[in-house]
Amino acid sequence: MPEIVELNVGGVHYTTTLNTLLQEKGTLLCELFEGPEGRDSLAKDSKGRYFLDRDGVLFRYILDFLRDKALNLPEGFRERQRLLREAEHFKLTAMLECIRGDRDARPPGCITIGYRGSFQFGKDGLADVKFRKLSRILVCGRVAQCREVFGDTLNESRDPDHGGPDRYTSRFFLKHCFIEQAFDNLHEHGYRMAGSCGSGTAGSAAEPKPGVDTEENRWNHYNEFVFIRD
Amino acid sequence: MPEIVELNVGGVHYTTTLNTLLQEKGTLLCELFEGPEGRDSLAKDSKGRYFLDRDGVLFRYILDFLRDKALNLPEGFRERQRLLREAEHFKLTAMLECIRGDRDARPPGCITIGYRGSFQFGKDGLADVKFRKLSRILVCGRVAQCREVFGDTLNESRDPDHGGPDRYTSRFFLKHCFIEQAFDNLHEHGYRMAGSCGSGTAGSAAEPKPGVDTEENRWNHYNEFVFIRD
Amino acid sequence: MPEIVELNVGGVHYTTTLNTLLQEKGTLLCELFEGPEGRDSLAKDSKGRYFLDRDGVLFRYILDFLRDKALNLPEGFRERQRLLREAEHFKLTAMLECIRGDRDARPPGCITIGYRGSFQFGKDGLADVKFRKLSRILVCGRVAQCREVFGDTLNESRDPDHGGPDRYTSRFFLKHCFIEQAFDNLHEHGYRMAGSCGSGTAGSAAEPKPGVDTEENRWNHYNEFVFIRD
Amino acid sequence: MPEIVELNVGGVHYTTTLNTLLQEKGTLLCELFEGPEGRDSLAKDSKGRYFLDRDGVLFRYILDFLRDKALNLPEGFRERQRLLREAEHFKLTAMLECIRGDRDARPPGCITIGYRGSFQFGKDGLADVKFRKLSRILVCGRVAQCREVFGDTLNESRDPDHGGPDRYTSRFFLKHCFIEQAFDNLHEHGYRMAGSCGSGTAGSAAEPKPGVDTEENRWNHYNEFVFIRD
Amino acid sequence: MPEIVELNVGGVHYTTTLNTLLQEKGTLLCELFEGPEGRDSLAKDSKGRYFLDRDGVLFRYILDFLRDKALNLPEGFRERQRLLREAEHFKLTAMLECIRGDRDARPPGCITIGYRGSFQFGKDGLADVKFRKLSRILVCGRVAQCREVFGDTLNESRDPDHGGPDRYTSRFFLKHCFIEQAFDNLHEHGYRMAGSCGSGTAGSAAEPKPGVDTEENRWNHYNEFVFIRD
Repeated sequence: MPEIVELNVGGVHYTTTLNTLLQEKGTLLCELFEGPEGRDSLAKDSKGRYFLDRDGVLFRYILDFLRDKALNLPEGFRERQRLLREAEHFKLTAMLECIRGDRDARPPGCITIGYRGSFQFGKDGLADVKFRKLSRILVCGRVAQCREVFGDTLNESRDPDHGGPDRYTSRFFLKHCFIEQAFDNLHEHGYRMAGSCGSGTAGSAAEPKPGVDTEENRWNHYNEFVFIRD
Repeated sequence: MPEIVELNVGGVHYTTTLNTLLQEKGTLLCELFEGPEGRDSLAKDSKGRYFLDRDGVLFRYILDFLRDKALNLPEGFRERQRLLREAEHFKLTAMLECIRGDRDARPPGCITIGYRGSFQFGKDGLADVKFRKLSRILVCGRVAQCREVFGDTLNESRDPDHGGPDRYTSRFFLKHCFIEQAFDNLHEHGYRMAGSCGSGTAGSAAEPKPGVDTEENRWNHYNEFVFIRD
Repeated sequence: MPEIVELNVGGVHYTTTLNTLLQEKGTLLCELFEGPEGRDSLAKDSKGRYFLDRDGVLFRYILDFLRDKALNLPEGFRERQRLLREAEHFKLTAMLECIRGDRDARPPGCITIGYRGSFQFGKDGLADVKFRKLSRILVCGRVAQCREVFGDTLNESRDPDHGGPDRYTSRFFLKHCFIEQAFDNLHEHGYRMAGSCGSGTAGSAAEPKPGVDTEENRWNHYNEFVFIRD
Repeated sequence: MPEIVELNVGGVHYTTTLNTLLQEKGTLLCELFEGPEGRDSLAKDSKGRYFLDRDGVLFRYILDFLRDKALNLPEGFRERQRLLREAEHFKLTAMLECIRGDRDARPPGCITIGYRGSFQFGKDGLADVKFRKLSRILVCGRVAQCREVFGDTLNESRDPDHGGPDRYTSRFFLKHCFIEQAFDNLHEHGYRMAGSCGSGTAGSAAEPKPGVDTEENRWNHYNEFVFIRD
Repeated sequence: MPEIVELNVGGVHYTTTLNTLLQEKGTLLCELFEGPEGRDSLAKDSKGRYFLDRDGVLFRYILDFLRDKALNLPEGFRERQRLLREAEHFKLTAMLECIRGDRDARPPGCITIGYRGSFQFGKDGLADVKFRKLSRILVCGRVAQCREVFGDTLNESRDPDHGGPDRYTSRFFLKHCFIEQAFDNLHEHGYRMAGSCGSGTAGSAAEPKPGVDTEENRWNHYNEFVFIRD
């Protein structure tokens, strides 16, 4: 039968086991709760609960981490910085590493995707459905982040710069032409579309070059989509 | 009269019945609460409540599932991954299947809707109201997801590729011309508009072909709408 | 002096009066709490509170409904489906009708507003301020929803279709030319702008027709705004 | 030493002073708590707390109002309508006025800002940086709301209509040409950008008029920004 | 062993130490809790907790501040104004300065980023990938805020105005041409993209000047991105 410990963390009450509290060596919780004499010297509230003078709400995630040995925060969690502060206070090295690793693995930043496209008219426009025709999907942003998102589908062959992964480039493009696949890749990596803009092309006094379809030429446009990861 | 059970789940107190806790066979709750001798060996808090060393907040949805035998989470629920972890811990097979099935039935992804449109001028522009004129609504994205959203209204006849439902295509279009109906279909399936862009066409040095209305030709534009499901 | 009732609903404690609980006839609450012998047979928690094995959080809105005989949910309430389930369980017919009526009165859907516009140049462009010049505000979407939003300001005269109110149309327009008034109408009815796109027109090799202002002609554009109600 | 009052409001416990509760004359709280015999006749819960059969959560803001004599709600507060209902129930006239005044002072609505712009090329395009060149910032929306937002910077001289402040106009413009200042003004007054669209101009078969810079003419565009206040 | 203090702040219970409460000199908490005779004269609730007639929820952040001597609020915290009111009440000068300093260091406002761009065609369009070609990134907004965000990368050389840092300018540009770097800078400083719009250029009856690539000229466009900090 586990030894049950009742805690009062800044006024919020938790119940857990001694085993959970001592899960990680070298923490402030070990210093406080290891050995009966340590526990005896702890301050207690009027109901006999061990008292910790820290934020009561965030302690929920500290207990979760000690129980599961894994960080599992709510989506859209907005107290990461505050939780870091609590983990520091309790000297929870493993948890600190998780919170920081989590943040470093997903650095905030921006990636822009653009494509120059038109529609397939062909054979004098006889086809009854004109599908989207995309020449290239251009990718702009930080080198390391573009690589993280697009992996093998990224074509870097035209990027003449040999600087580090922290520089910005606008000379990457994708090996495929499915803009939705690019969007899905960005989404899977935590990027959200922040804005989008489209523009057409200007007409010209000159006749189009031979071999260029006039209608296709008229429908040329550039669409640009900005993705941001918080 | 049902047997009432008072629980202390990580410090949050719940009251329920033994019947509810034993609802699903083979769970950790059955192991713990089945038979009076099992219950007697359980740890209890200082008020005599049965103690479970797990997250107290998420246990609310576990009880709900046991009572109703159906998963019914709040809209925009942001602790799905955390709840999965709790269901695993309690060996709640049916609930795990529901959470995973829910997620699999609605895989995240992106669908793009575009249309080439203009306005009806006709008879030398005499009509006093020029309505929107849409030739085709183009649909791009993963095959399986496009089928899920548009069902019978999807025209796949021009998609020459015979790959699996996981490939991307940009050769689907709709059998009708109501862009709002397409938006509604996407919305009903959990997709939200993430961005939109419009572009016009270029003028040309050549005279338009016979039979082409000049004004209609000038107002040609392509509008593209990106929808994403989280 | 009212008879006070203390409740334990799945672990959340409420205090109310017997009168409030018996407010609506034929509910499960009446079955449970009507007559002292009924109450006596109810399960109680260790503090003597009447015990109900249901979700404790949502019971807040059930009590509110019984007290005020009106449904008054928080804006952006995200547990409507869950609340419906609770109301069903308690056989709260009037509340069920309110929740469903609320949902039916505001069906989700999409309405698109577009305008072809330019600027007033007039008299050889002498006016120093060129204001927006809008010919018509076009309205597209489901017939019933367009009528609900725009009421008397909707012009249906050019919609040749005589189908039911569930069909989609793109042949409605407004009787006035204030796009902001249209936006306000949509907003008042719970629609939110989801996207917007603009496009210009192409130049033409031909000279503009007599009576057409060249500058005004050049600035022609089509702006389209998509509104969605969740 | 103040007289402390413990309350049970629908199951949520509050502690306050008699003085705070009697702060505003003529309220239901005065009727209930004025004079010891009034208090004695009040219903009490099992712990001796005075019982009020109303929503427990919203009572937080009622106490705040009584303590500070000012309404100070959280940003993005979503239970305004519900709070109004509670204030009505307690006959808190001053609070009702504050909630309603707050709402009336910031009526929801939409304002559109647009500009026709290009870039400065000058002297045959010799300047190496081409800055944005904006002729006028146009303002469209309800007269009263435009005045509230832009105050002295609003130029109404070209608005020929002499109707009331509730009519819509599209003939206002700003006295300055900084679009960011306009955005800031809108933001300060609680308006949020809901959408934006841009469009270019069409080319023309005619040569531009003398004195018109060809490049500047080509880059002409109209950008429109829609702001909405909830 | 620290002296533990149990508080009842408007009905919410906190536990802390006397040391934490007396952390900052000159506060209302010092007036109340300094010296045993001060404490003895304090009002107490029925459980013997010291009673403070203020909002119970916000007191969490006040305790946090006293413990850590640093302000560490949740992201997206929506009760800043309310917290300010509480800090004033308790005469917490250091905390007041932090809340205000925080707000002043990040004044709300709007910055617009725009670029005139095209694509590299070069050598008669022989290169198979046409990358984005950006001449300048223009920056518009309040002088002080532009400087804060872009620091050394801001080129102010063409801004002829010598007014104060509160004036608006549209004559700044960046020393580099990576729009994603500009977006990242804005994001790091708390600005969020609120809208974006694109526009192309008009064709011209005239032949392009010698040395101007025809295709590049046709693809010219202006994209504008509006960022707002709340």
